[in-house]
Amino acid sequence: MLDLDKVYRAAYVLKQVARRTDVIAAPGVAPGVDLYLKTENLQVTGSFKLRGAYYRISQLPREDLAHGIIACSAGNHAQGVALAATRLGVHSLVCMPDGAPIMKVENTRRLGAEVRLVKGDYDDAHDEAVRIQQETGATFIHPYDDEDVIAGQGTIGLEIMDQLDGVDAVVVPVGGGGLISGVALAVKSLRPECKVYGVQAAGAASMANAFHDGKMETLDSVSTFADGIAVRTPGDVTFKMVQKYVDDVVTVTDDEIAAAILALMERQKLVTEGAGAAPVAAVMFHKLPLEGKRVVCVVSGGNIDVNILSRVINRGLAMSGRKVTLGVKLTDKPGQLQQVSGIVAELGANVVSVDYDLTDPDLPISSCTLRIGMETRDQAQIDQIRERLAAAGFALAD
Amino acid sequence: MLDLDKVYRAAYVLKQVARRTDVIAAPGVAPGVDLYLKTENLQVTGSFKLRGAYYRISQLPREDLAHGIIACSAGNHAQGVALAATRLGVHSLVCMPDGAPIMKVENTRRLGAEVRLVKGDYDDAHDEAVRIQQETGATFIHPYDDEDVIAGQGTIGLEIMDQLDGVDAVVVPVGGGGLISGVALAVKSLRPECKVYGVQAAGAASMANAFHDGKMETLDSVSTFADGIAVRTPGDVTFKMVQKYVDDVVTVTDDEIAAAILALMERQKLVTEGAGAAPVAAVMFHKLPLEGKRVVCVVSGGNIDVNILSRVINRGLAMSGRKVTLGVKLTDKPGQLQQVSGIVAELGANVVSVDYDLTDPDLPISSCTLRIGMETRDQAQIDQIRERLAAAGFALAD
Repeated sequence: MLDLDKVYRAAYVLKQVARRTDVIAAPGVAPGVDLYLKTENLQVTGSFKLRGAYYRISQLPREDLAHGIIACSAGNHAQGVALAATRLGVHSLVCMPDGAPIMKVENTRRLGAEVRLVKGDYDDAHDEAVRIQQETGATFIHPYDDEDVIAGQGTIGLEIMDQLDGVDAVVVPVGGGGLISGVALAVKSLRPECKVYGVQAAGAASMANAFHDGKMETLDSVSTFADGIAVRTPGDVTFKMVQKYVDDVVTVTDDEIAAAILALMERQKLVTEGAGAAPVAAVMFHKLPLEGKRVVCVVSGGNIDVNILSRVINRGLAMSGRKVTLGVKLTDKPGQLQQVSGIVAELGANVVSVDYDLTDPDLPISSCTLRIGMETRDQAQIDQIRERLAAAGFALAD
Repeated sequence: MLDLDKVYRAAYVLKQVARRTDVIAAPGVAPGVDLYLKTENLQVTGSFKLRGAYYRISQLPREDLAHGIIACSAGNHAQGVALAATRLGVHSLVCMPDGAPIMKVENTRRLGAEVRLVKGDYDDAHDEAVRIQQETGATFIHPYDDEDVIAGQGTIGLEIMDQLDGVDAVVVPVGGGGLISGVALAVKSLRPECKVYGVQAAGAASMANAFHDGKMETLDSVSTFADGIAVRTPGDVTFKMVQKYVDDVVTVTDDEIAAAILALMERQKLVTEGAGAAPVAAVMFHKLPLEGKRVVCVVSGGNIDVNILSRVINRGLAMSGRKVTLGVKLTDKPGQLQQVSGIVAELGANVVSVDYDLTDPDLPISSCTLRIGMETRDQAQIDQIRERLAAAGFALAD
């Protein structure tokens, strides 16, 4: 089995290409926990995946390199492989499902890979990659179930141990398990008393289930916006390593992940993808016994579609009382809109949208519902606006 | 006048409290420029202001400290002063205008300052601070026009010179001028051939005007969402230093700043405020002769209200063809909505909102306008949808 020596060798090789990302204190994100972030979202390519891919490719014999590299990915692994191969002067072909976000396709191409868009989903792209591999003799780079890949990801564990003293626990996102296997190996080898916890999305709990049941399982489907950890089956190698080195694997909901993404943006000025924020969500929502502990969350990546990010922000704002749409029932009297907007303005909210809804069947024909969207300070301000509207005789719609 | 020796002294003092923030490569943000970011948005308190405030307070004689510290700010300076005073065991009082965002008030309190909310605007809060200062004998900490404050900010220049070789130019946001004065002093002292450029918001170009006219001027009003650099008059000390050390001061529009904020989020995974993104905007939009040069932008802070950030993202998405609302004129025939949504779905856009507008006076009474909001890949996809709708016989509203 993989040992610490190989992780040190990977660290030496990676000096040329990977950033030694900062460990940054995150006070206030999870009160009562001495929280730090290993900021792999600031890694080259926007995620940790470069580490494993580069070390894996760097270890290939010269005669294999001549046949090139092949991989299949709709996400971060694609960019990691592309940059790694380019830096090592090797041709890379990445198969991606044709529905992959154009941004990820573009980024992979920009980093030097040839991209083959395959009709269908991830499995179809994977089949095509295997077919091409057999035809060309290129080396297939697995995204996680490979000892060299795991050794590369393990360098994150070495860096954390070097960058911060007295760490009680490291919390790591888990998809296929490559990242946590490497990090856990490094951390437990150097500091056995340090806990290592895995975090999965509740809608893709393959490793969490396997860990608790003691046997590999395959999910029929996965459902989470954290695409970086939406994996149906743990790896063979990684499952064994998780069983050996990891203390627990827990899950978080998509809403909890969204709240963590918003907190990391507001308090830490970091953009994170769902997978990257999942460990912070686990700490914020008390999924792990970390009260009073010094904890490092591995923020694994920041490659989130801005459309999704925009929705996450809007949901987070609504959840925390900083954005609201109130429905106000108006009757056919002059000056009512003026009166409502006067109350809103006086209480300091900022109107961002106004809609009349004429179609509510519960209202008399001469009435309508005004839907007024506002930016607000907090829930207390919203309550105040509701009360003042009610006091002025307006009925609120749901 | 201030010299390099004092900046080195400040650097020594700041080791205890300020992070040595990373300089991170930003390939792809501005093609043709070898661009790096000095990430002061990841500084403790979310901006560089801690540096100047801490060094200033650390240099006060013990007898002055007993009377406490006073400051006036609606933004980053408030948090910098609060944390600096708390760390040095000194009482601080910060006057803020009562309309200041509640988040900034809360953060300032959380860092240990007493906050006095003053009715009115910044000038009113400033008057109140001066009044209290005279009453209590507390030391007033100016946000920029002070040699110790400037020396503290100058440590950023030292760090850049130490962190990256061969820098051709450093680009710095300018409000009152404290940051650029310190950075320019340090950079020009160590590497005279390195250019130092200032960037202001076009709606608050006080230093840019003064620099080009050769004399101090006061703007009647300022208009920009980059509140960190919305200053009506340059400082006396800082204006002299800018005249002596800075090569040029240019301006960027709010739309250009918004585009830079979006680029920094998407490509660098960094949340930045308007002031922090202004130098990157200047590079992206070719305001400076930087083609082929190695350039460091000082990303001064990341304290942006998420409501504003959400609007910046939405505007940026619309500008880059990734969000669109199309108006489609429907006549009173069955199945039209189905036909439109079929076309949109087939071309791969993601519907996020649907509205019927019954009130367009140009349309026959039995017609209406369907407004369909979509997330799209790019402008080409939008054009494709428009063409297909037109080919199917639908008229598009503006």
